[in-house]
Amino acid sequence: MIIVMAGATEGQVQAVVERIHKAGLHTHVSVGVARTVIGVVGDDRTKEMLRESLEVAPGVEKVVAILQPYKLVSREFIPHDTVVTVGGRAIGGTQVAIIAGPCSVESRAQILATADAVKAAGGAILRGGAFKPRTSPYAFQGLEEEGLRLLVEARERTGLPVVTEAMDAEQLDQVVRYADMVQIGARNMQNYPLLRAAGRQKKPVLLKRGVSATLEELLLAAEYILSEGNYQVVLCERGIRGINGNTRYTLDLSAVPVLKGLTHLPVIVDPSHGTGKWRYVGPMARAAVAAGADGLMIEVHPDPASALSDGPQSLNLDNFAALMASLRPLAGAIGRGM
Amino acid sequence: MIIVMAGATEGQVQAVVERIHKAGLHTHVSVGVARTVIGVVGDDRTKEMLRESLEVAPGVEKVVAILQPYKLVSREFIPHDTVVTVGGRAIGGTQVAIIAGPCSVESRAQILATADAVKAAGGAILRGGAFKPRTSPYAFQGLEEEGLRLLVEARERTGLPVVTEAMDAEQLDQVVRYADMVQIGARNMQNYPLLRAAGRQKKPVLLKRGVSATLEELLLAAEYILSEGNYQVVLCERGIRGINGNTRYTLDLSAVPVLKGLTHLPVIVDPSHGTGKWRYVGPMARAAVAAGADGLMIEVHPDPASALSDGPQSLNLDNFAALMASLRPLAGAIGRGM
Amino acid sequence: MIIVMAGATEGQVQAVVERIHKAGLHTHVSVGVARTVIGVVGDDRTKEMLRESLEVAPGVEKVVAILQPYKLVSREFIPHDTVVTVGGRAIGGTQVAIIAGPCSVESRAQILATADAVKAAGGAILRGGAFKPRTSPYAFQGLEEEGLRLLVEARERTGLPVVTEAMDAEQLDQVVRYADMVQIGARNMQNYPLLRAAGRQKKPVLLKRGVSATLEELLLAAEYILSEGNYQVVLCERGIRGINGNTRYTLDLSAVPVLKGLTHLPVIVDPSHGTGKWRYVGPMARAAVAAGADGLMIEVHPDPASALSDGPQSLNLDNFAALMASLRPLAGAIGRGM
Amino acid sequence: MIIVMAGATEGQVQAVVERIHKAGLHTHVSVGVARTVIGVVGDDRTKEMLRESLEVAPGVEKVVAILQPYKLVSREFIPHDTVVTVGGRAIGGTQVAIIAGPCSVESRAQILATADAVKAAGGAILRGGAFKPRTSPYAFQGLEEEGLRLLVEARERTGLPVVTEAMDAEQLDQVVRYADMVQIGARNMQNYPLLRAAGRQKKPVLLKRGVSATLEELLLAAEYILSEGNYQVVLCERGIRGINGNTRYTLDLSAVPVLKGLTHLPVIVDPSHGTGKWRYVGPMARAAVAAGADGLMIEVHPDPASALSDGPQSLNLDNFAALMASLRPLAGAIGRGM
Repeated sequence: MIIVMAGATEGQVQAVVERIHKAGLHTHVSVGVARTVIGVVGDDRTKEMLRESLEVAPGVEKVVAILQPYKLVSREFIPHDTVVTVGGRAIGGTQVAIIAGPCSVESRAQILATADAVKAAGGAILRGGAFKPRTSPYAFQGLEEEGLRLLVEARERTGLPVVTEAMDAEQLDQVVRYADMVQIGARNMQNYPLLRAAGRQKKPVLLKRGVSATLEELLLAAEYILSEGNYQVVLCERGIRGINGNTRYTLDLSAVPVLKGLTHLPVIVDPSHGTGKWRYVGPMARAAVAAGADGLMIEVHPDPASALSDGPQSLNLDNFAALMASLRPLAGAIGRGM
Repeated sequence: MIIVMAGATEGQVQAVVERIHKAGLHTHVSVGVARTVIGVVGDDRTKEMLRESLEVAPGVEKVVAILQPYKLVSREFIPHDTVVTVGGRAIGGTQVAIIAGPCSVESRAQILATADAVKAAGGAILRGGAFKPRTSPYAFQGLEEEGLRLLVEARERTGLPVVTEAMDAEQLDQVVRYADMVQIGARNMQNYPLLRAAGRQKKPVLLKRGVSATLEELLLAAEYILSEGNYQVVLCERGIRGINGNTRYTLDLSAVPVLKGLTHLPVIVDPSHGTGKWRYVGPMARAAVAAGADGLMIEVHPDPASALSDGPQSLNLDNFAALMASLRPLAGAIGRGM
Repeated sequence: MIIVMAGATEGQVQAVVERIHKAGLHTHVSVGVARTVIGVVGDDRTKEMLRESLEVAPGVEKVVAILQPYKLVSREFIPHDTVVTVGGRAIGGTQVAIIAGPCSVESRAQILATADAVKAAGGAILRGGAFKPRTSPYAFQGLEEEGLRLLVEARERTGLPVVTEAMDAEQLDQVVRYADMVQIGARNMQNYPLLRAAGRQKKPVLLKRGVSATLEELLLAAEYILSEGNYQVVLCERGIRGINGNTRYTLDLSAVPVLKGLTHLPVIVDPSHGTGKWRYVGPMARAAVAAGADGLMIEVHPDPASALSDGPQSLNLDNFAALMASLRPLAGAIGRGM
Repeated sequence: MIIVMAGATEGQVQAVVERIHKAGLHTHVSVGVARTVIGVVGDDRTKEMLRESLEVAPGVEKVVAILQPYKLVSREFIPHDTVVTVGGRAIGGTQVAIIAGPCSVESRAQILATADAVKAAGGAILRGGAFKPRTSPYAFQGLEEEGLRLLVEARERTGLPVVTEAMDAEQLDQVVRYADMVQIGARNMQNYPLLRAAGRQKKPVLLKRGVSATLEELLLAAEYILSEGNYQVVLCERGIRGINGNTRYTLDLSAVPVLKGLTHLPVIVDPSHGTGKWRYVGPMARAAVAAGADGLMIEVHPDPASALSDGPQSLNLDNFAALMASLRPLAGAIGRGM
């Protein structure tokens, strides 16, 4: 059972918690900016008996019974689509939002040239990694804080909000100071201290699905963030381990309609990681839009052959512009804009 | 090494085979309707020495070195797109071909009602199972020859060509007598005697990918059919075993652009088996068209709730008509017709 | 519901079938050598009403309600372990049975040398492929009937019974004439016409798990064989598609205790295909015995480097003898002989 | 290229680094307790030219060329088996080390009763979770520091060293103060900041394989720890996502011989998470020992039915004692003790 309190005073929250404890149940209190969420753990019959009186307690907005393991992210809890706002741009709703940029921020020239091209082609948000999760400790690990500063410069130049990844609470603090949206990568989808930290700050969060995560596990990972009070979360399908060989991962596009049915959160698709080869990014980007994705995340680089990471899956600037041109009529054909 | 002979006399073929044997190599001769294909097995250097003289031997059209394990199906061998003709309808080319119908032919009324609806909505080909591969021996196994006769009646009524599955050489003989196209199902993708038998007859073949087959294995399975002389083969992606739970299989749409790059054969998608739930058939059908599929195979039933097989993934007649209407503008947006 | 009739006359069977039809239910009758099995399909309440009277009908041995989708293979149906007898050797019971031999029968010298070595090291049964399911149509396809004759010669020389694979009903007829046990390979695990044909003859059947088959699908495939009257079936785990790279497949040894709990049929393990590399065959063979497998199937070749198929995963004769020596104390440590 | 310096002064390290930089290459310096490791990144030919002179520079122990992506963990780098010492107990070597205990520390009575039973049955190390990575934010999250204190009490009472999990750098600091070994769980296998932090402290580390990680990814994750100077790492196979249904994961026992060939680090197996059902823990524990595992990690609980986490896969105290008795003769049969 979840009790959602909105605009409640500290005393009102305390009063609810005490009643629950008196009944022999345990609580999990998450104080957010606008709402306080009280998770109630314990005997189901006791919960049911308590329910009616809690629904009318001062400050209580909702009491939600837990049928699915995830609560706050579910469509049962919030029936309408959530629109996440990133530096003034919307993800979710009628528009298809394109996030694009290089895998890693490598240099001032590289990120500014890419940002200009993303803006010119109609992209909504700029991506670029400053802290890079690399399989090998000997691979390029990102420009770190210098990369964050270059992203800010690119934003100032183009007006595009920026999203970048954090891998632990310390990096998160830095990212939040510079960027407009925090990315939690596939490898950290079940890094619970990081998810909680992302839930305790106010910037929107882009949560990527782990490479072998079920959709329920993805929703429960998002639930960690919402349970701390941050409801501004975008989910991203980026490929799973399947029968691979020709592609790096298997892009699971059915995740789009399935997730849109289960949750109110926006769902986007990353066809660059999902395929691992730039040649397949176009067809899969188009397929993702046709499947109903609220946005795409695409790797773009001015010179993919010399990229320090993910070159083989990056579009060059011309190919990105051509892809954008091909996406617009498709979005129109399903009644969306871009 | 593959030697393709076109319009060659028996004597010309024999002469080539003898020269190869004299050089100490083995042959694999497939006599087709229009072409005879001689596969050459043995020492690579000997093959290379023989090559030049074979290229100019009477009746020889091509000598192809084997870089990939599959030969006749590869784009290297035939660079242009193959168009497969099924009872006058084309699969491959500029149009997107829709194959639709019930999982199983269950009764005269059921198949005729479905055929009428498929035709009215603009479907190109009628599907319907007469011999059903069922996981359990106690499940409904199909109407067998009676089902084939009902398919013929539906064709006569609507003009739609029909496709249906065969599971062994004996069933294949029956199917070929009645249907316009033979289906080889996912469970039989590596049933080599069946593939060879399908290659020795002239009707076009619809070959479905096995649920854990790599794309190379699928292409090699098709190669079995082509190596017997039948080049009229359509490949079908129908979902693989992935991280399932919300869907029955993981529809691997990246197979479409990957296969289109590797082979000249048409590639279609079956979103009904791929998702296992009718609710997701629409979004994934649209995604498949956007990804570049040459066609779709969709399960339609007048009353899915009472279907003897695959009810949960079948569209009813109204939903099928609505899907068809939504596909047309999408096909147009990528420059294809339907 | 399954009705098992033992030693029943044709008239007794007919009487039971008629009563079921009169009640509006359908039947699935399998006439075996010793038993006739009648599967009853239709409304559950009607079945329940009929049950009591059928239990006492002449010729009826058992009436079994269907809780699991598989019936005759289940431990509910036959609680004790089935021992399958192959040319006088037992699979199942207290001994661990070792089946060994080359992937393919390649020549008289090769199969006889291997048979001698298998016998000398204490192997129970000789394996060797005559009809080979090969991914590519251009690979060596086996010696066919000549291979069967060589297996018979090896049996006459060593006394070892032989097992070999059939891929369709026609090959099955040939195999049954020569061999002591028929193998149905992983690629044909759901080749239902073949499974039925294997169930209609009397030789024991070795059924290998498909590379992505669930254990329930494996049991239902075995059910096809038993439902035709042949209860002499051995199941074989041989590796599934997992997170591969260092091994060809992922040998799923937990299948052994899981299957032993669900079915009365013997369960053996093939570590050669399961790993694809001879270096790992020893450790995984020992692990399989420790996990409780009733036997092993191991590829052995006098000269793996020159094998026409599966050389990399074949043990040479010395390594096989060493493996056998290492297995005996392990079998003893878990209270079994070898 | 990796340069390993042993007992080198700061000046000697600095001199080597400067020579590398002068050649235009980049360095990755990890100062460990006994050794300093300098990874060299850049042009391969330059590295090769530099190599000879670096090999004889003061303080340099070894210069290792990088053939595989992982270096310090590889058998090429250290050919002999590493033995990791945990509070005086060895993992690796001739003995099979048994780590056992509850999934979570739940109470003083629970952990002490379990510790007594683990000791009595011959276990080497006590496990118990204080910080629990739970899929749902509403599930029991562990007793945290109180759990660590109870583990210390159990160690003082029984003499068993203890291992417990940390999920971020902050928890790691706490765990290191109390426990004898730090566990990094499957969900955090690619949490690089955590791996680096684990490499910068001196307690041995138990690193569990991610549920869809390749063995190369596991070795590269361990490389992160070793590259920071901590060579005391034990790898643990705990099951991967496969064709599941009857078991929670697919325990990939072939990982044992494969890893033992690739790395000098000890390899253990967790059959409790690997199967998810206590009934299969015994057979798979025996199989793991027979496959050559250096140890096992087993979940034991005085009352599995009332466990706050992982009850279904936990052995009760009697079943654990029986398992230990069955393992000893098996270990003996392969020439190891326990």
